Amino acid sequence: MNRFDFHIHATDGRARTGTIATQRGTIRTPAFMPVGTAATVKGMHPEQVKAAGADIILGNTYHLMLRPGAERMARLGGLHRFMNWDRPILTDSGGFQVMSLGSLVKMREEGVSFQSHVDGSKHFVSPERSIEIQRLLGSDIVMAFDECTKHPASHEQAASSMRLSMRWAKRSRDAFLENPAPALFGIQQGSLYRDLRQESAERLMEIGFEGYAIGGLAVGEGQESMFEVLDYAPDMLPPDRPRYLMGVGKPSDIIGAVLRGVDMFDCVLPTRSGRTAQAFVTTGTLNLRNARHAEDTGPLDPECPCPTCANYSRAYLHHLFKAEEMLGPMLLTQHNIWHYQQLMQGLRDAISEGRVEAYARDRLDRMDQAAA
Amino acid sequence: MNRFDFHIHATDGRARTGTIATQRGTIRTPAFMPVGTAATVKGMHPEQVKAAGADIILGNTYHLMLRPGAERMARLGGLHRFMNWDRPILTDSGGFQVMSLGSLVKMREEGVSFQSHVDGSKHFVSPERSIEIQRLLGSDIVMAFDECTKHPASHEQAASSMRLSMRWAKRSRDAFLENPAPALFGIQQGSLYRDLRQESAERLMEIGFEGYAIGGLAVGEGQESMFEVLDYAPDMLPPDRPRYLMGVGKPSDIIGAVLRGVDMFDCVLPTRSGRTAQAFVTTGTLNLRNARHAEDTGPLDPECPCPTCANYSRAYLHHLFKAEEMLGPMLLTQHNIWHYQQLMQGLRDAISEGRVEAYARDRLDRMDQAAA
Repeated sequence: MNRFDFHIHATDGRARTGTIATQRGTIRTPAFMPVGTAATVKGMHPEQVKAAGADIILGNTYHLMLRPGAERMARLGGLHRFMNWDRPILTDSGGFQVMSLGSLVKMREEGVSFQSHVDGSKHFVSPERSIEIQRLLGSDIVMAFDECTKHPASHEQAASSMRLSMRWAKRSRDAFLENPAPALFGIQQGSLYRDLRQESAERLMEIGFEGYAIGGLAVGEGQESMFEVLDYAPDMLPPDRPRYLMGVGKPSDIIGAVLRGVDMFDCVLPTRSGRTAQAFVTTGTLNLRNARHAEDTGPLDPECPCPTCANYSRAYLHHLFKAEEMLGPMLLTQHNIWHYQQLMQGLRDAISEGRVEAYARDRLDRMDQAAA
Repeated sequence: MNRFDFHIHATDGRARTGTIATQRGTIRTPAFMPVGTAATVKGMHPEQVKAAGADIILGNTYHLMLRPGAERMARLGGLHRFMNWDRPILTDSGGFQVMSLGSLVKMREEGVSFQSHVDGSKHFVSPERSIEIQRLLGSDIVMAFDECTKHPASHEQAASSMRLSMRWAKRSRDAFLENPAPALFGIQQGSLYRDLRQESAERLMEIGFEGYAIGGLAVGEGQESMFEVLDYAPDMLPPDRPRYLMGVGKPSDIIGAVLRGVDMFDCVLPTRSGRTAQAFVTTGTLNLRNARHAEDTGPLDPECPCPTCANYSRAYLHHLFKAEEMLGPMLLTQHNIWHYQQLMQGLRDAISEGRVEAYARDRLDRMDQAAA
């Protein structure tokens, strides 16, 4: 039941393409995981998420522990059955979102106390409880409980935060091994400091995980700083294990990270943008509320094979957003998820064929044209 | 191109079942038309509306003339192409919604002046303009422009209003014949007065239409009063033409009207209820926000063959509504539309097999059980 086999089928420079075989299906890497925060990828039926090519989605421990609740979810048969998604699910640890609650949070060595944003009820999450919750949800890929170091952080702050996360990583691993799921991923921290990233990687490898995430990026440092860290951070992690860059990102972020050896991604951008009328297209982005689309009978993206582009015009999508019709977010989210999945397929193909640099340059060049 | 052939295949008491053959497909009667106000059946992809068994949908002239606009819609290739719906569309005349604007409306013999609820712009609709708009939209079944008599109305008020509608019906017909679509339906008015319903029916038949609607009901008079009118009003209309009861209704309203010889219906109830957490089920209605559903792993309705009931629990739908997730309205609207279409199929089958009275009694009895 706990199968988790990562195989790299081809490399091209530092980029890699492969598969993760699990009991619930195969994940092709580099992979983009649509975010299903509250047991739904917002605005999409799960069969549409599958049809877009998503092999795995992400669920949010923080949201699900509050509503419907972890024990209740277990009684209801687990997250997969609840939301009608039979492919793999990765769950975050809840740490990032709990610690975003600001004044409602109290952090100690033992764990984090906080008040629910839903009903003000009091909760406590430790590494042990986070792992238990993820097990109750039925997660295929469990994430270690950590502190996402804030940006900017001094070397001292970053070191202290990272070392707490490493102590929590060990406790996460110990709790996980009492009743293992297919995989537990450790999370590298260390902010923008190379020595701390190295120390974190070494500590995680001593503990040993099925996969390794790069945390604490995409928190406001900008793409250039993120890429500087990605110039060295992935190579500090075991080459034969999946590397997951958490919370990233724009298509250009993903392209840059794949070139630097990252295998997995998640981000709310395609779904959130779908709800706010922003379309990701080959030439960049479009705002569907813009009046210039009002009589445009063309599709969002003539190169996109998605059902939205096959069946609907920009004029129709513009109309739906102007009229505040639900179908606007539904169709645009569908397109954006397809766009991301098509990008991942393009990257996988290009790596397999040894032309990922040229593919990346072409994609980035065409985005720049639209921005100009 | 203007095919519109109504054939009655079976009758059972006053109830009838048949088909309307049009260029865009066959409409099985009795038919329920989901409402697609602003060029979308709210919360559903059109392929899901088809899969539910809807042969025809309704579009709203008032909303579409304001946004995206009738001439613009024509430039964009018409409503069918715009919204990706290739089956028949019936459009209302806009009169009902214009005249609901209250103080923003000025009515004269010539037509109605009003201000847009969208941007305050001034508009004028006459019978001639309503027919032109419906032609620009590409409607398959065009409705005559009329005044929906308010309830309650004195005999004098109802007579005056009905006679205005009859003059407008003649002007609608004349305008329609200049450039005909497949069908124009006249609308019987007369409030709750039998003599006025008779006068209206006679006037409409003198003019001659492809189908006849019964208007001015479901405006607050209650089911009992509505059924009293339906005890005589349908039989005043030509037996070989479809009869359409506008804006109706609850399942029990539809059952009672089918027994009294009505062939077509439209109502926002299944879609609107889907967005407000109300499910129509065999035993009545459910409010999905109710905490009693929180751990119910059963489907909405064990007898329903819809994708929502096949794949999701009441507990999940409860969760989606509590979390204010779009997928809640999406899944519940889908179920409600299936429920209505299943009811129509049940009525058609029962009429064909000469057991519609027993079928109706069984359906109504089971609804009452849930209410108790």
